Amino acid sequence: MLWFLLLFCGLSLAEEGANDPETQSCFPDMCNLLKEVGAMSEKIKSLETRLQDSETRLQDSETRLQVSETKLQNSETRLQNSESQILELKNKERTKVIFSTAVGEGKKHIGPFTTDTTLIYKTVITNIGNAYNAATGIFTAPVAGVYYFTIFFHAGKEHKTSLHLYKNSEVKLSTHDHATETDFADNGGNAGYLHLQQGDQVYVRLSQNSHVWGNAGYTTFSGSLVTQM
Amino acid sequence: MLWFLLLFCGLSLAEEGANDPETQSCFPDMCNLLKEVGAMSEKIKSLETRLQDSETRLQDSETRLQVSETKLQNSETRLQNSESQILELKNKERTKVIFSTAVGEGKKHIGPFTTDTTLIYKTVITNIGNAYNAATGIFTAPVAGVYYFTIFFHAGKEHKTSLHLYKNSEVKLSTHDHATETDFADNGGNAGYLHLQQGDQVYVRLSQNSHVWGNAGYTTFSGSLVTQM
Amino acid sequence: MLWFLLLFCGLSLAEEGANDPETQSCFPDMCNLLKEVGAMSEKIKSLETRLQDSETRLQDSETRLQVSETKLQNSETRLQNSESQILELKNKERTKVIFSTAVGEGKKHIGPFTTDTTLIYKTVITNIGNAYNAATGIFTAPVAGVYYFTIFFHAGKEHKTSLHLYKNSEVKLSTHDHATETDFADNGGNAGYLHLQQGDQVYVRLSQNSHVWGNAGYTTFSGSLVTQM
Repeated sequence: MLWFLLLFCGLSLAEEGANDPETQSCFPDMCNLLKEVGAMSEKIKSLETRLQDSETRLQDSETRLQVSETKLQNSETRLQNSESQILELKNKERTKVIFSTAVGEGKKHIGPFTTDTTLIYKTVITNIGNAYNAATGIFTAPVAGVYYFTIFFHAGKEHKTSLHLYKNSEVKLSTHDHATETDFADNGGNAGYLHLQQGDQVYVRLSQNSHVWGNAGYTTFSGSLVTQM
Repeated sequence: MLWFLLLFCGLSLAEEGANDPETQSCFPDMCNLLKEVGAMSEKIKSLETRLQDSETRLQDSETRLQVSETKLQNSETRLQNSESQILELKNKERTKVIFSTAVGEGKKHIGPFTTDTTLIYKTVITNIGNAYNAATGIFTAPVAGVYYFTIFFHAGKEHKTSLHLYKNSEVKLSTHDHATETDFADNGGNAGYLHLQQGDQVYVRLSQNSHVWGNAGYTTFSGSLVTQM
Repeated sequence: MLWFLLLFCGLSLAEEGANDPETQSCFPDMCNLLKEVGAMSEKIKSLETRLQDSETRLQDSETRLQVSETKLQNSETRLQNSESQILELKNKERTKVIFSTAVGEGKKHIGPFTTDTTLIYKTVITNIGNAYNAATGIFTAPVAGVYYFTIFFHAGKEHKTSLHLYKNSEVKLSTHDHATETDFADNGGNAGYLHLQQGDQVYVRLSQNSHVWGNAGYTTFSGSLVTQM
């Protein structure tokens, strides 16, 4: 329609003479107007196409963003979970309870006494976690778990040696040597694993009328937390 | 061009008289039309600028989104990897094998027998992981790893004591005491670390013609998994 | 305005006759032009609305993208942190030092010698981490930590047995048996936990004039890293 009009414009321009100045001035502007409107029509079509394309891309981006947000949230949950588990593993790894002791009372025997007594190991070689009390000879479990304990003794012949390893009020392990005429000294020991609750006490009792050699690192009491449980 | 036309419109309106009602009616509308087209042209320019800006921003967003998606994928891979390693660490931490036993047959000796026999430790103090069989006296490794074993005995004088710790059919550790006239009892023991495969058996053999004291917690057999490998 | 113009167009078409071909041809085109401009005006309004909407959505997307980028960065930091901690835990788990040895020199005694000598345990049952040197009998700590050590001996009556477990130049644990007329053999041992620095040496010294039974797995020296610290 516009092209026909433009053609017509051309013909009209030819037809119109100098005797009609008003309408003659109008037509050239009209042609330009038509040209401009035509150009604008094309631009609008282009804008529509581009906007349609942008809207599609925007929709895609919003979808991808939604997917990413969901994945990110899942990742954060998994990360939180992993952090908890790492913390738990680190806490277990960090909980160390290890003690190594000896009677350490110089070149003499401890005992015999007329009653059973708790043997106090005064030399503390190691006491990680501070669960062994060198004043009382008592080990107190700081956490629930399975602990390894081992005792060794050296003793002279004149008296017997009788040691019992207690968990609270129960005897768990024992070692013994008889008094003898001829064998100048003897040795003994024992070891085992005990499942303790927090606060459980483990200690060594020297039976009445028995003795152990107290020097340096001969008569010992040691142990460690093997695993928390 | 349009401004010139509008000016012309103004002049034309003046020039046109009531004697030309048709053309006189056309020009005011024409002027308005020109104004409107001019306004529309400005709007189109504005739309083009804004759309260009949006397209740039959209391009940037798509690039950022692509980067984020890649980073997120890498994070998920690293997270998966971390989760696997945590699981492996937890599994190792969870695998506990600890046993602590004593002969526990009351105030009597076990043996002497005329042949070698497996010493059965009937008192089970601890048996985490259930790898020790109190009916047979045999410890069977549930997983491959290095295990610690320790044995202690107490025995009277009349017979010797001879104990061997076996891994399958091989002697690994031994402890021995001779029969004696004078020393009423003796003690002995041993300990060591053995690398076992799953299913390997560890047990204590009481040599023929030897004996051990079976009471309570004097004669013991204990051990634990130190590390899986 | 345009509708009025269109109406006018219709009236004009009626009024104009065949006697005015130029202006008659212009008005039908003008009407179409007005219609077209009207349609374009509507399209521009529609574009403006849609573009406004797109700009809002784009703004929202950019905000969401910013939030996601920040969250992702935080996740990456936490992930890095977790990975470090896992590596540290794995390294600790991976560092295994376990040795189990016996004198293993056949059916004979080692010693007595006229001076103190380091007892060399030639049978290596286990030596994970290769920290025990079977040529020298010396265990050297590869990492700082608390280590468990245990020794056992068997020995005949003719000479005493005196063993000392050393940490560098310090005696930490001892076990002893006197020579005797009547008791054909004796046993002894000890165990404990020592906190060592990297390079610290632990070994067993056979005191002068003492001996141990060297056969197979009777006289032993074992130990393991309990925990790094």
